[in-house]
Amino acid sequence: MEQKEKTIKSQEIFKGKILNLFVDEVKLPNGHTSTRELIRHCKASCVLAINEKNEIIIEEQFRYPYDTTLIEFPAGKCDKDEDPKDTALRELAEETGYIANNIELLGLFYPTCAYSDEVIYLYLATDLKEGKQHLDKDETLSFSWIKLNEFIKMIQEDKVRDGKTLATMTYYLTKYRTIS
Amino acid sequence: MEQKEKTIKSQEIFKGKILNLFVDEVKLPNGHTSTRELIRHCKASCVLAINEKNEIIIEEQFRYPYDTTLIEFPAGKCDKDEDPKDTALRELAEETGYIANNIELLGLFYPTCAYSDEVIYLYLATDLKEGKQHLDKDETLSFSWIKLNEFIKMIQEDKVRDGKTLATMTYYLTKYRTIS
Repeated sequence: MEQKEKTIKSQEIFKGKILNLFVDEVKLPNGHTSTRELIRHCKASCVLAINEKNEIIIEEQFRYPYDTTLIEFPAGKCDKDEDPKDTALRELAEETGYIANNIELLGLFYPTCAYSDEVIYLYLATDLKEGKQHLDKDETLSFSWIKLNEFIKMIQEDKVRDGKTLATMTYYLTKYRTIS
Repeated sequence: MEQKEKTIKSQEIFKGKILNLFVDEVKLPNGHTSTRELIRHCKASCVLAINEKNEIIIEEQFRYPYDTTLIEFPAGKCDKDEDPKDTALRELAEETGYIANNIELLGLFYPTCAYSDEVIYLYLATDLKEGKQHLDKDETLSFSWIKLNEFIKMIQEDKVRDGKTLATMTYYLTKYRTIS
């Protein structure tokens, strides 16, 4: 059976700084019509930066929707027409100061497929050179190095809940580690 | 430094079937004010169902925001006041027919921490008994069994991009498998 839902009408409800909201009327595969509430969001990138001692960079950042500080990998939105790889390198440099001489796409992450079209590109950065952090005016975050094994323990203890960070780890572990 | 952002004003922009949109005015730790665009969404649950042959259940479901069919684990929104564990059991039974005699919380997943407060509870279901699928009227999805190792290969090949599914795998691999 053809699974696609066809757009009959699309109405823009809100145009914001970081997201736009639409309510679309769609025709379902079974012929019924329904509505879809939909966030449209720009692309973003996220980076797992690892050094030759198997240490990785993590950040702590306050997140308003959860009213708490979360553990995350460096990440940020793509500027208009910016290649997501350049976003990853830029955000890593801005947030931590580190310049990566090697960067590789691990995979793509669809955060919340039921109501958003956001795509986050997940990267692995290696061969890192220390530099100077240069945060945006209203950005407050701190970063630190942690042993990969200790970070895995933090995941086991439910201390890492950020979606892009967990997804990056899935790609990294399945591609670069032996699982048995 | 105190990292919290304090809500000065909260304005509801849209109240929908599956999400509500707010624009809040906040006071930043540095004293500046800013706005936060914020989706409020109900809780949801997602289930990794695995049998004694190391086979797992995956679904294929059309997702309107991406205009394509995605590979996902069974999942769904919590009904009002429903325990997320009961949601996980209910959705697994509705979407696949399987009844789990054992279910365990793996961890929590924050899909998109910059602009949504959604929390998805990620479960591991075992000791499964076959039953009859009973989908919602407008739900069209198919499910199948796949060897865990083959599913890991699908992740390596970037064929699994759904956030809750990738995050569930991170918890499962770090808690139940040996990583070296």
